[in-house]
Amino acid sequence: MMEFEEKVQATKPVFSGHLIDVEVQTVVTPKGQEATREVVHHAPAVALLMVDDDDRAILMKQWRAPIKKVTLEVPAGKVDPRDGGDPQKAAIREMNEETRLQAAHLKKINAAYTSVGFCDEYMTTYYATGLTPVTTALPQDADEELAMVKVTKDEAKAMIESGEIEDQKTVSALYYWFAQDVTHG
Amino acid sequence: MMEFEEKVQATKPVFSGHLIDVEVQTVVTPKGQEATREVVHHAPAVALLMVDDDDRAILMKQWRAPIKKVTLEVPAGKVDPRDGGDPQKAAIREMNEETRLQAAHLKKINAAYTSVGFCDEYMTTYYATGLTPVTTALPQDADEELAMVKVTKDEAKAMIESGEIEDQKTVSALYYWFAQDVTHG
Repeated sequence: MMEFEEKVQATKPVFSGHLIDVEVQTVVTPKGQEATREVVHHAPAVALLMVDDDDRAILMKQWRAPIKKVTLEVPAGKVDPRDGGDPQKAAIREMNEETRLQAAHLKKINAAYTSVGFCDEYMTTYYATGLTPVTTALPQDADEELAMVKVTKDEAKAMIESGEIEDQKTVSALYYWFAQDVTHG
Repeated sequence: MMEFEEKVQATKPVFSGHLIDVEVQTVVTPKGQEATREVVHHAPAVALLMVDDDDRAILMKQWRAPIKKVTLEVPAGKVDPRDGGDPQKAAIREMNEETRLQAAHLKKINAAYTSVGFCDEYMTTYYATGLTPVTTALPQDADEELAMVKVTKDEAKAMIESGEIEDQKTVSALYYWFAQDVTHG
Protein backbone atom coordinates (compact mmCIF):
# COMPACT_ATOMS: atom_id res chain seq x y z
CA MET A 1 0.00 0.00 0.00
CA MET A 2 3.06 2.24 -0.10
CA GLU A 3 1.70 4.11 -3.13
CA PHE A 4 -0.75 5.80 -0.73
CA GLU A 5 1.69 6.63 2.06
CA GLU A 6 2.09 10.21 3.27
CA LYS A 7 5.37 11.26 4.87
CA VAL A 8 5.11 13.37 8.02
CA GLN A 9 7.46 16.38 7.78
CA ALA A 10 6.55 18.10 11.05
CA THR A 11 4.22 17.57 14.01
CA LYS A 12 2.98 20.47 16.14
CA PRO A 13 1.09 19.70 19.39
CA VAL A 14 -1.77 22.21 19.76
CA PHE A 15 -3.77 20.87 22.73
CA SER A 16 -3.16 18.38 25.52
CA GLY A 17 -6.20 17.45 27.62
CA HIS A 18 -7.43 14.68 29.93
CA LEU A 19 -9.46 12.93 27.21
CA ILE A 20 -7.76 14.01 23.99
CA ASP A 21 -4.52 15.42 22.59
CA VAL A 22 -4.53 17.36 19.32
CA GLU A 23 -1.69 17.89 16.86
CA VAL A 24 -1.24 19.41 13.41
CA GLN A 25 0.91 17.43 10.99
CA THR A 26 2.56 18.74 7.87
CA VAL A 27 2.73 15.87 5.40
CA VAL A 28 3.87 15.22 1.83
CA THR A 29 1.46 13.18 -0.28
CA PRO A 30 2.61 10.41 -2.67
CA LYS A 31 2.33 12.98 -5.51
CA GLY A 32 4.76 15.29 -3.69
CA GLN A 33 2.16 17.80 -2.56
CA GLU A 34 2.37 19.38 0.90
CA ALA A 35 -0.78 19.11 3.04
CA THR A 36 -1.92 19.68 6.62
CA ARG A 37 -3.54 16.97 8.77
CA GLU A 38 -5.33 17.72 12.06
CA VAL A 39 -5.13 14.67 14.31
CA VAL A 40 -6.93 13.93 17.60
CA HIS A 41 -5.40 11.25 19.84
CA HIS A 42 -7.85 9.36 22.09
CA ALA A 43 -7.52 6.20 24.22
CA PRO A 44 -8.80 2.89 22.82
CA ALA A 45 -12.35 2.03 23.83
CA VAL A 46 -14.83 -0.83 24.12
CA ALA A 47 -18.54 -1.17 23.41
CA LEU A 48 -20.92 -3.95 24.46
CA LEU A 49 -23.92 -5.43 22.69
CA MET A 50 -25.52 -6.95 25.82
CA VAL A 51 -28.54 -9.14 25.07
CA ASP A 52 -30.58 -10.67 27.90
CA ASP A 53 -32.39 -14.03 27.97
CA ASP A 54 -35.61 -12.34 26.74
CA ASP A 55 -33.74 -11.18 23.58
CA ARG A 56 -33.64 -7.54 24.64
CA ALA A 57 -30.56 -5.33 24.19
CA ILE A 58 -29.37 -3.09 27.00
CA LEU A 59 -28.95 0.64 26.32
CA MET A 60 -27.82 3.43 28.60
CA LYS A 61 -29.31 6.90 28.76
CA GLN A 62 -26.76 9.61 29.41
CA TRP A 63 -26.00 13.27 28.86
CA ARG A 64 -23.48 14.03 26.12
CA ALA A 65 -21.76 17.41 26.36
CA PRO A 66 -20.64 17.66 22.69
CA ILE A 67 -24.26 17.56 21.48
CA LYS A 68 -26.00 18.88 24.63
CA LYS A 69 -28.49 16.01 24.53
CA VAL A 70 -29.37 12.76 26.20
CA THR A 71 -28.45 9.72 24.08
CA LEU A 72 -29.30 6.03 24.11
CA GLU A 73 -26.10 4.02 23.73
CA VAL A 74 -24.79 0.53 24.24
CA PRO A 75 -22.58 0.35 27.36
CA ALA A 76 -19.10 1.59 26.47
CA GLY A 77 -15.98 3.17 27.87
CA LYS A 78 -12.27 3.71 27.51
CA VAL A 79 -9.67 1.02 28.00
CA ASP A 80 -7.83 2.44 31.00
CA PRO A 81 -4.72 1.64 33.04
CA ARG A 82 -6.74 -0.64 35.38
CA ASP A 83 -7.32 -2.90 32.36
CA GLY A 84 -3.61 -3.22 31.53
CA GLY A 85 -4.42 -2.34 27.93
CA ASP A 86 -6.71 -5.39 27.56
CA PRO A 87 -10.03 -4.47 25.89
CA GLN A 88 -11.73 -7.63 27.20
CA LYS A 89 -10.91 -6.61 30.80
CA ALA A 90 -12.28 -3.14 30.03
CA ALA A 91 -15.46 -4.71 28.64
CA ILE A 92 -16.02 -6.80 31.80
CA ARG A 93 -15.31 -3.78 34.02
CA GLU A 94 -17.64 -1.48 32.05
CA MET A 95 -20.49 -4.03 32.19
CA ASN A 96 -20.12 -4.14 35.98
CA GLU A 97 -19.85 -0.34 36.42
CA GLU A 98 -22.66 0.63 34.06
CA THR A 99 -25.15 -2.25 34.30
CA ARG A 100 -24.13 -4.32 37.39
CA LEU A 101 -24.24 -7.38 35.13
CA GLN A 102 -21.74 -10.03 34.07
CA ALA A 103 -21.83 -12.22 30.96
CA ALA A 104 -21.42 -16.00 30.71
CA HIS A 105 -20.49 -15.54 27.03
CA LEU A 106 -18.40 -12.65 25.73
CA LYS A 107 -17.44 -12.67 22.04
CA LYS A 108 -15.42 -10.01 20.17
CA ILE A 109 -17.35 -9.05 17.05
CA ASN A 110 -15.19 -6.30 15.55
CA ALA A 111 -12.57 -3.64 16.22
CA ALA A 112 -12.71 -0.36 14.32
CA TYR A 113 -11.71 3.32 14.30
CA THR A 114 -14.69 5.53 15.19
CA SER A 115 -13.70 8.67 13.20
CA VAL A 116 -10.64 7.70 11.21
CA GLY A 117 -10.55 10.94 9.19
CA PHE A 118 -9.20 12.91 12.15
CA CYS A 119 -8.94 10.62 15.20
CA ASP A 120 -7.20 7.40 16.29
CA GLU A 121 -9.89 6.19 18.73
CA TYR A 122 -9.99 2.39 18.24
CA MET A 123 -13.05 0.60 19.58
CA THR A 124 -13.45 -3.13 20.18
CA THR A 125 -17.07 -4.32 20.27
CA TYR A 126 -18.22 -7.41 22.15
CA TYR A 127 -21.43 -9.46 22.09
CA ALA A 128 -22.38 -10.38 25.68
CA THR A 129 -25.02 -12.97 26.55
CA GLY A 130 -25.90 -15.13 29.55
CA LEU A 131 -26.30 -12.02 31.70
CA THR A 132 -26.53 -12.29 35.50
CA PRO A 133 -26.09 -9.75 38.34
CA VAL A 134 -22.53 -9.22 39.58
CA THR A 135 -21.71 -10.23 43.13
CA THR A 136 -19.25 -7.35 43.72
CA ALA A 137 -20.21 -3.95 42.31
CA LEU A 138 -17.34 -1.71 41.21
CA PRO A 139 -17.40 2.05 41.94
CA GLN A 140 -19.04 4.19 39.26
CA ASP A 141 -17.70 7.38 37.66
CA ALA A 142 -18.60 10.21 40.03
CA ASP A 143 -19.46 12.70 37.27
CA GLU A 144 -21.53 10.36 35.07
CA GLU A 145 -25.33 9.90 35.37
CA LEU A 146 -26.71 6.77 33.70
CA ALA A 147 -30.04 4.97 33.40
CA MET A 148 -30.64 1.56 31.83
CA VAL A 149 -33.24 0.77 29.14
CA LYS A 150 -34.01 -2.59 27.49
CA VAL A 151 -35.23 -2.82 23.89
CA THR A 152 -36.46 -5.60 21.62
CA LYS A 153 -35.19 -5.91 18.04
CA ASP A 154 -38.35 -4.31 16.65
CA GLU A 155 -38.10 -1.43 19.12
CA ALA A 156 -34.42 -0.92 18.30
CA LYS A 157 -35.14 -0.87 14.54
CA ALA A 158 -37.89 1.73 14.99
CA MET A 159 -35.64 3.84 17.25
CA ILE A 160 -32.85 3.93 14.65
CA GLU A 161 -35.34 4.89 11.93
CA SER A 162 -36.91 7.64 14.06
CA GLY A 163 -33.50 9.00 15.11
CA GLU A 164 -34.11 8.25 18.81
CA ILE A 165 -30.97 6.10 18.62
CA GLU A 166 -28.31 8.27 16.97
CA ASP A 167 -24.97 6.96 18.19
CA GLN A 168 -22.87 5.13 15.61
CA LYS A 169 -21.31 2.42 17.81
CA THR A 170 -24.85 1.63 19.00
CA VAL A 171 -26.35 1.54 15.50
CA SER A 172 -23.49 -0.71 14.36
CA ALA A 173 -23.88 -3.13 17.29
CA LEU A 174 -27.65 -3.28 16.78
CA TYR A 175 -27.26 -3.96 13.03
CA TYR A 176 -24.94 -6.85 13.97
CA TRP A 177 -27.68 -8.15 16.27
CA PHE A 178 -30.33 -7.85 13.52
CA ALA A 179 -28.04 -9.73 11.11
CA GLN A 180 -27.78 -12.71 13.49
CA ASP A 181 -31.18 -13.90 12.24
CA VAL A 182 -29.57 -14.57 8.86
CA THR A 183 -27.25 -17.18 10.31
CA HIS A 184 -29.43 -18.68 13.01
CA GLY A 185 -32.89 -18.78 11.59
CA MET B 1 -34.52 14.06 30.33
CA MET B 2 -33.68 17.18 32.31
CA GLU B 3 -32.50 15.07 35.26
CA PHE B 4 -29.35 14.34 33.18
CA GLU B 5 -28.66 17.83 31.93
CA GLU B 6 -25.31 19.49 32.58
CA LYS B 7 -25.11 23.28 32.70
CA VAL B 8 -22.19 24.88 30.87
CA GLN B 9 -20.48 27.48 33.11
CA ALA B 10 -17.63 28.47 30.79
CA THR B 11 -16.32 27.59 27.34
CA LYS B 12 -12.67 28.06 26.40
CA PRO B 13 -11.64 27.64 22.73
CA VAL B 14 -8.26 25.87 22.61
CA PHE B 15 -7.78 25.11 18.89
CA SER B 16 -9.31 26.31 15.65
CA GLY B 17 -8.33 24.38 12.51
CA HIS B 18 -9.58 23.68 8.99
CA LEU B 19 -11.20 20.35 9.89
CA ILE B 20 -11.89 20.67 13.62
CA ASP B 21 -12.31 23.22 16.43
CA VAL B 22 -11.63 22.21 20.02
CA GLU B 23 -12.97 23.73 23.24
CA VAL B 24 -12.88 22.96 26.94
CA GLN B 25 -16.17 23.38 28.79
CA THR B 26 -16.58 23.75 32.54
CA VAL B 27 -19.94 22.20 33.44
CA VAL B 28 -22.03 21.53 36.53
CA THR B 29 -23.59 18.05 36.68
CA PRO B 30 -27.17 17.43 37.87
CA LYS B 31 -25.71 16.50 41.30
CA GLY B 32 -24.02 19.93 41.49
CA GLN B 33 -20.51 18.68 40.81
CA GLU B 34 -18.12 20.71 38.65
CA ALA B 35 -16.53 18.82 35.74
CA THR B 36 -14.50 19.49 32.60
CA ARG B 37 -15.61 18.42 29.09
CA GLU B 38 -13.26 18.45 26.08
CA VAL B 39 -15.30 18.93 22.92
CA VAL B 40 -14.26 18.62 19.25
CA HIS B 41 -16.47 20.35 16.67
CA HIS B 42 -16.53 18.76 13.19
CA ALA B 43 -18.76 19.29 10.12
CA PRO B 44 -21.61 16.84 9.48
CA ALA B 45 -20.73 13.98 7.15
CA VAL B 46 -22.22 11.32 4.90
CA ALA B 47 -21.37 7.69 4.20
CA LEU B 48 -22.59 5.46 1.38
CA LEU B 49 -23.33 1.76 1.28
CA MET B 50 -23.09 1.37 -2.51
CA VAL B 51 -24.12 -2.07 -3.77
CA ASP B 52 -23.82 -2.97 -7.46
CA ASP B 53 -26.06 -5.26 -9.53
CA ASP B 54 -23.78 -8.23 -8.76
CA ASP B 55 -24.44 -7.71 -5.00
CA ARG B 56 -20.97 -6.38 -4.30
CA ALA B 57 -20.31 -3.39 -2.00
CA ILE B 58 -17.91 -0.64 -3.05
CA LEU B 59 -15.03 0.22 -0.73
CA MET B 60 -12.30 2.83 -1.11
CA LYS B 61 -8.64 2.33 -0.20
CA GLN B 62 -7.01 5.43 1.22
CA TRP B 63 -4.25 6.65 3.51
CA ARG B 64 -5.39 7.85 6.94
CA ALA B 65 -3.00 10.19 8.74
CA PRO B 66 -4.34 9.63 12.30
CA ILE B 67 -3.46 5.92 12.16
CA LYS B 68 -0.66 6.04 9.52
CA LYS B 69 -2.29 3.20 7.59
CA VAL B 70 -4.30 2.44 4.49
CA THR B 71 -7.95 1.67 5.26
CA LEU B 72 -10.86 0.13 3.37
CA GLU B 73 -13.93 2.33 3.82
CA VAL B 74 -17.31 2.95 2.29
CA PRO B 75 -17.33 6.19 0.25
CA ALA B 76 -17.80 9.12 2.63
CA GLY B 77 -17.12 12.79 3.11
CA LYS B 78 -18.14 16.01 4.78
CA VAL B 79 -21.32 17.92 4.00
CA ASP B 80 -19.81 21.13 2.64
CA PRO B 81 -21.03 24.57 1.52
CA ARG B 82 -21.55 23.30 -2.06
CA ASP B 83 -24.26 21.00 -0.66
CA GLY B 84 -26.18 23.81 1.05
CA GLY B 85 -26.23 21.74 4.24
CA ASP B 86 -28.17 18.92 2.51
CA PRO B 87 -26.65 15.49 3.30
CA GLN B 88 -28.37 13.88 0.30
CA LYS B 89 -26.67 16.37 -2.06
CA ALA B 90 -23.36 15.60 -0.34
CA ALA B 91 -23.98 11.87 -0.83
CA ILE B 92 -24.62 12.29 -4.56
CA ARG B 93 -21.53 14.53 -4.93
CA GLU B 94 -19.28 12.12 -2.98
CA MET B 95 -20.42 9.16 -5.10
CA ASN B 96 -19.47 11.10 -8.22
CA GLU B 97 -16.11 12.34 -6.86
CA GLU B 98 -14.95 9.07 -5.34
CA THR B 99 -16.48 6.37 -7.56
CA ARG B 100 -17.70 8.16 -10.74
CA LEU B 101 -21.05 6.41 -10.19
CA GLN B 102 -24.62 7.57 -9.66
CA ALA B 103 -27.47 5.67 -8.00
CA ALA B 104 -31.01 5.10 -9.30
CA HIS B 105 -32.09 4.42 -5.70
CA LEU B 106 -30.74 6.31 -2.69
CA LYS B 107 -32.26 5.56 0.71
CA LYS B 108 -31.28 7.08 4.07
CA ILE B 109 -30.69 4.26 6.55
CA ASN B 110 -29.55 6.13 9.67
CA ALA B 111 -27.98 9.27 11.07
CA ALA B 112 -25.64 9.05 14.04
CA TYR B 113 -22.81 10.70 15.96
CA THR B 114 -19.50 8.97 15.25
CA SER B 115 -17.74 9.66 18.58
CA VAL B 116 -20.33 11.25 20.82
CA GLY B 117 -18.16 11.16 23.94
CA PHE B 118 -16.02 14.04 22.72
CA CYS B 119 -17.16 15.11 19.22
CA ASP B 120 -20.29 16.40 17.45
CA GLU B 121 -19.58 14.84 14.03
CA TYR B 122 -23.03 13.71 12.77
CA MET B 123 -23.05 11.22 9.90
CA THR B 124 -25.98 10.32 7.66
CA THR B 125 -25.64 6.94 5.95
CA TYR B 126 -27.34 6.06 2.65
CA TYR B 127 -27.95 2.79 0.82
CA ALA B 128 -27.30 3.31 -2.91
CA THR B 129 -28.31 0.80 -5.59
CA GLY B 130 -28.95 0.86 -9.33
CA LEU B 131 -25.39 2.13 -9.93
CA THR B 132 -24.37 3.50 -13.34
CA PRO B 133 -21.43 5.67 -14.51
CA VAL B 134 -21.90 9.44 -14.23
CA THR B 135 -21.99 11.48 -17.42
CA THR B 136 -20.19 14.51 -15.91
CA ALA B 137 -17.30 13.79 -13.54
CA LEU B 138 -16.75 16.33 -10.74
CA PRO B 139 -13.19 17.40 -9.77
CA GLN B 140 -11.55 15.27 -7.08
CA ASP B 141 -9.76 16.44 -3.93
CA ALA B 142 -6.20 17.30 -4.98
CA ASP B 143 -4.58 15.89 -1.83
CA GLU B 144 -6.55 12.63 -1.62
CA GLU B 145 -5.46 9.33 -3.25
CA LEU B 146 -8.18 6.72 -3.61
CA ALA B 147 -8.63 3.28 -5.19
CA MET B 148 -11.87 1.34 -5.51
CA VAL B 149 -12.44 -2.26 -4.38
CA LYS B 150 -15.60 -4.40 -4.69
CA VAL B 151 -16.46 -7.06 -2.11
CA THR B 152 -19.14 -9.72 -1.77
CA LYS B 153 -21.01 -10.22 1.52
CA ASP B 154 -18.86 -13.24 2.41
CA GLU B 155 -15.66 -11.33 1.63
CA ALA B 156 -16.84 -8.37 3.70
CA LYS B 157 -17.70 -10.61 6.68
CA ALA B 158 -14.26 -12.25 6.56
CA MET B 159 -12.55 -8.84 6.26
CA ILE B 160 -14.32 -7.51 9.37
CA GLU B 161 -13.40 -10.65 11.31
CA SER B 162 -9.75 -10.51 10.22
CA GLY B 163 -9.49 -6.76 10.96
CA GLU B 164 -8.77 -5.87 7.33
CA ILE B 165 -11.88 -3.68 7.52
CA GLU B 166 -11.48 -1.58 10.69
CA ASP B 167 -13.50 1.58 10.13
CA GLN B 168 -16.68 1.90 12.18
CA LYS B 169 -18.95 3.63 9.62
CA THR B 170 -17.95 0.88 7.18
CA VAL B 171 -18.56 -1.97 9.64
CA SER B 172 -21.95 -0.46 10.51
CA ALA B 173 -23.01 -0.05 6.87
CA LEU B 174 -21.90 -3.61 6.06
CA TYR B 175 -23.80 -5.04 9.06
CA TYR B 176 -26.91 -3.22 7.74
CA TRP B 177 -26.31 -4.91 4.38
CA PHE B 178 -25.91 -8.36 6.02
CA ALA B 179 -29.17 -7.83 7.93
CA GLN B 180 -31.11 -7.18 4.69
CA ASP B 181 -31.28 -10.96 4.11
CA VAL B 182 -33.55 -11.19 7.14
CA THR B 183 -36.21 -9.13 5.43
CA HIS B 184 -35.79 -10.24 1.84
CA GLY B 185 -34.91 -13.90 2.12
